[in-house]
Amino acid sequence: MIYLKNLASPADLKGLTLSQLEELAGEIREAILETVAQTGGHLASSLGVVELTIALHRVFDTPVDKIVWDVGHQAYAHKLLTGRLDRFATLRQFGGLSGFPKREESPHDAFDVGHSSTSISAALGMAAARDTLGGKEKVVAVIGDGSLTSGLAFEGLNQAGHLKKDLIVVLNDNEMSISPNVGALSSFLSRKMTSDFVVRFKKETEQFLVNLPRFGKDLLNLARRAEDSLKSFLTPGMLFEAFGFNYVGPIDGHRLEELIETLQNVSRLRGPTLIHVVTKKGKGYPPAEENPALFHGVGPFDRPTGQVLGVKGGLSYTAVFGRTLVELAEKDERVVAITAAMAEGTGLKLFAERFPGRFYDVGIAEQHAVTFAAGLACRGMRPVVAIYSTFLQRAFDNVLHDVCLQNLPVTFALDRGGLVGADGPTHHGVFDYSFLRPIPNLVFMAPRDEAVLRRAMATAVDYDGPFAYRYPRGDALGLLLEGAAEPLPVGIGEKLRDGEDGVIFAAGTTVAAAMEAARTLEGEGLFLTVVDPLFIKPLDRDLIAAEARRSGFVVTVEENVLQGGFGSAVMELLAEEGVAPRMLMIGLPDRFVEQGSQSALRALYGLDAAGIAGRIRAALGREAGSRKAAAS
Amino acid sequence: MIYLKNLASPADLKGLTLSQLEELAGEIREAILETVAQTGGHLASSLGVVELTIALHRVFDTPVDKIVWDVGHQAYAHKLLTGRLDRFATLRQFGGLSGFPKREESPHDAFDVGHSSTSISAALGMAAARDTLGGKEKVVAVIGDGSLTSGLAFEGLNQAGHLKKDLIVVLNDNEMSISPNVGALSSFLSRKMTSDFVVRFKKETEQFLVNLPRFGKDLLNLARRAEDSLKSFLTPGMLFEAFGFNYVGPIDGHRLEELIETLQNVSRLRGPTLIHVVTKKGKGYPPAEENPALFHGVGPFDRPTGQVLGVKGGLSYTAVFGRTLVELAEKDERVVAITAAMAEGTGLKLFAERFPGRFYDVGIAEQHAVTFAAGLACRGMRPVVAIYSTFLQRAFDNVLHDVCLQNLPVTFALDRGGLVGADGPTHHGVFDYSFLRPIPNLVFMAPRDEAVLRRAMATAVDYDGPFAYRYPRGDALGLLLEGAAEPLPVGIGEKLRDGEDGVIFAAGTTVAAAMEAARTLEGEGLFLTVVDPLFIKPLDRDLIAAEARRSGFVVTVEENVLQGGFGSAVMELLAEEGVAPRMLMIGLPDRFVEQGSQSALRALYGLDAAGIAGRIRAALGREAGSRKAAAS
Repeated sequence: MIYLKNLASPADLKGLTLSQLEELAGEIREAILETVAQTGGHLASSLGVVELTIALHRVFDTPVDKIVWDVGHQAYAHKLLTGRLDRFATLRQFGGLSGFPKREESPHDAFDVGHSSTSISAALGMAAARDTLGGKEKVVAVIGDGSLTSGLAFEGLNQAGHLKKDLIVVLNDNEMSISPNVGALSSFLSRKMTSDFVVRFKKETEQFLVNLPRFGKDLLNLARRAEDSLKSFLTPGMLFEAFGFNYVGPIDGHRLEELIETLQNVSRLRGPTLIHVVTKKGKGYPPAEENPALFHGVGPFDRPTGQVLGVKGGLSYTAVFGRTLVELAEKDERVVAITAAMAEGTGLKLFAERFPGRFYDVGIAEQHAVTFAAGLACRGMRPVVAIYSTFLQRAFDNVLHDVCLQNLPVTFALDRGGLVGADGPTHHGVFDYSFLRPIPNLVFMAPRDEAVLRRAMATAVDYDGPFAYRYPRGDALGLLLEGAAEPLPVGIGEKLRDGEDGVIFAAGTTVAAAMEAARTLEGEGLFLTVVDPLFIKPLDRDLIAAEARRSGFVVTVEENVLQGGFGSAVMELLAEEGVAPRMLMIGLPDRFVEQGSQSALRALYGLDAAGIAGRIRAALGREAGSRKAAAS
Repeated sequence: MIYLKNLASPADLKGLTLSQLEELAGEIREAILETVAQTGGHLASSLGVVELTIALHRVFDTPVDKIVWDVGHQAYAHKLLTGRLDRFATLRQFGGLSGFPKREESPHDAFDVGHSSTSISAALGMAAARDTLGGKEKVVAVIGDGSLTSGLAFEGLNQAGHLKKDLIVVLNDNEMSISPNVGALSSFLSRKMTSDFVVRFKKETEQFLVNLPRFGKDLLNLARRAEDSLKSFLTPGMLFEAFGFNYVGPIDGHRLEELIETLQNVSRLRGPTLIHVVTKKGKGYPPAEENPALFHGVGPFDRPTGQVLGVKGGLSYTAVFGRTLVELAEKDERVVAITAAMAEGTGLKLFAERFPGRFYDVGIAEQHAVTFAAGLACRGMRPVVAIYSTFLQRAFDNVLHDVCLQNLPVTFALDRGGLVGADGPTHHGVFDYSFLRPIPNLVFMAPRDEAVLRRAMATAVDYDGPFAYRYPRGDALGLLLEGAAEPLPVGIGEKLRDGEDGVIFAAGTTVAAAMEAARTLEGEGLFLTVVDPLFIKPLDRDLIAAEARRSGFVVTVEENVLQGGFGSAVMELLAEEGVAPRMLMIGLPDRFVEQGSQSALRALYGLDAAGIAGRIRAALGREAGSRKAAAS
């Protein structure tokens, strides 16, 4: 490593020759591969934009100029070029570099991201501020073709074309989002679109020329010119020009010289300009080039072979969901499945293969996914929207206004509920209890293990109204799953353990830690009841009120922020029932939770068995092991 | 009225001649005007689509065929044609017909609406279900050009073009949403777009022809044909064809014959088809034609003059907001204002006139509005997003992920917080305490009156982080507002009244009713403390804990659902502080609230002074007037 190590700032790129920059690109790929093979991360996207990132930093002057990376999972090269080489090995680790741009981390990071399709809107805001303040800086949004399928990106384009601010949008076209890209826009960008008009025009012109003995050459030239113009017009430029953008491209996103020259030219243009850059996901690392979906977000892997490491024998919750949905769909023809560009992440691959006609990948379009499901449900289907908890935030109004208001039988399968780990604050699914609970008509389950998840799924298919269930990222408990999943009665919880010193109401997968805490405390002479309410909404009113009344000391445990979460639901119920016990609410505090392994974060926030036991012990005025101490 | 009265069902339209249908159109306009002049309602949109509605019901067979009205504020003619003439006078009244399509109300209403831009997604879902189930029905979405600026509509278009289902989208182009329409798409639809290519092509062709003595006629024909094709290609069709739609239009939306013929032809086409229909908002009623924005959603008016009735002398909260924002912007150049197509409704007209360079109407694009604001805030501006509470639901993730995660100083001015009245369940702003409260970093105020609203606004401009304040629809209290608005200390509440029998914590504009209730109860010998916490988040911890501890009986009052709302916030705080008082939570229940006047709904849900007093009295075991009874 010669060049990367010696870069003090991206400004130093201006001193390098083209061939030196090309060597630098190799060094960056090397650094990315070395780290990500250890830490896991968003490999394929980051490898795809190495040359583009070098070119951007060569032409623009961050942090004065602003580069807004969409989603941000392609920003590793950017991090390496902006002074973060020495900390790069800490990528996505607790206390380490974020896997996404983060303003706190560097002045070169213009905007925090994690969710897709925000870049045009944010960059336009920056451009508008610049013009109000009389600044001169350039503002550049870098957005993938997948992110462009989201309505938010369209809304940004629409206003950008209207305001006519100087704004550069780099369309990083790798012909996929995370899964292969879908939607009319995608065919359009990949120039698979055929236009009746072009065909008609060409035919008419040629026929005419055939019948024309003289002036043939001139006419042919004219016709060719016209046809060329038409073709360039019909290719992607058309769409963006219709939105008031200058369009430049498509250009090869791995040829540094062309990239730099084009960016230099474009930086002199006025008004909104879109540069269409074609890149290859995973570029430079054959396993990732061949399987970009696998290497999109990947765990640690063996670099020579591309073999992903550390995959345990156990089934993930995602896999249990995917298999069970196929079982349910085999028995019930009304079941259809919907994903927003996450067929692999949500475990729907199996379903898509088994029932291609009942599977819909709508692209990165969470809002549409939900309202489309509402339409399906209106006509008798039982759509299951499989979505990460954090991404359902995008469709909050669609859940409320399009599904629940009409009490339609749409199921929301919320994957990645709770703490997700290395993706950090943008991705933790720790708000869903709070934002879904206020919505009338919705039934919301939090299964404590994969067996209950299967039963939740069966319950949802039978239930004649909106239904959500939430399960975490990672391995399930490894329970033996036999026979068909049986539905559960809605709103009925389960007492798992009985004790006289208090009652723990534990939500979802926190039940295991709560049970372990109760066992620990029993060894110290404290006897806790443990109740799994199974349903976050409706709560099992009778069971919860009775247990709270009996014990007078109520503990709630949840992997969700405490504000408006499960514990609040329990308190609301108790207030209504006129029970005013002593309360101990265990959950996440009112701040964004950092990145880190799930187990580290659970320990940090007191959501593991030790943490839960410790809080209860303290609330009951005991020291750890106090009984033994007293007995000795 | 001859024809409308005798229609048993829309199928009867097939028996009427063209001239009878035209008479029917007049009768429908008459019926709409007669009722809406009394009840208020969405007049201009409904008048604009009378012919279109007749043509749709003439050609399609609801309820078998599905017509999905976008937003639904144009569906009055549809209601009149589908058996609701006799109940039409109850429009938007408590217990009466909804102002929007509602499946409960009629089998002819295919999808419940109120918020915009859902129709393509929902209709596509219905078409997909039809094809899975082997049905034959037609599915039609009717969407305005304003609604098309929303990303959700784009997401729907994108998937519709991809799936290639038989689906008809009627684009009702009246060149405005609610305010005059904005955005690149709008210029495009109104054919104001000039293309360099057309100009260049035309010039080249003409030059060539000038130099060509023979074959002139044939060439000219060719050129003309080519130019016509090009023009039709460059006009709106281009965009929709790029998305994989057949495009038909534009056609005159007030010529019944042309509409019926076109719809008949289109109903035989395969694949997704868009018909571009040009209509005039307010058609047939000159005052509404001249001022469609005023007559978009209008109160009762005098029909002969078009004078809107019943406007009181008092300032609305919206007006106070609009004026105060101008004052603040005069003192602070960083203040910029953003609306999502609601410049009038949110009171920003004044700001737009005074500071056109600092005002942004982004179209019906709530998500973009918020992320655009985040971009502005990144660069030092103080953007104020003025938005109805119910519409901020669309931008939940943008508030959380783009603004609050970065702790950016964006202000959300939430108009129409609480019960809104006649617009009903789709529009009540009764979820915002619940969905905003879980978001870290956000400060959230609920001013009790217009004086506090002004101070909340001043506080927000000074505050270096995300800030929201919520105020209701309707007249403010009529307080004298003098001098500049002074900021308030964040998180400090105010005790308004002192008493020994309990404490009422009342949120926002419920404070007035709580105070009145306290006065009533005082007359009965019950003495209640009343506290206005001013801030929903952060709560005034010391004040609330101290008062709750002192009294042991806590009442919370809010115009929000109880689930995760203000009362829950108070209980969370008390649980943390180890206070376990008796609780009485007054707010809205866990269901969607019907339409009705604000005062009727407040009485119904016990949120007026009598309701609050009654609940407290009951909780304290008193009969009304029991003290007097005891004394006598």
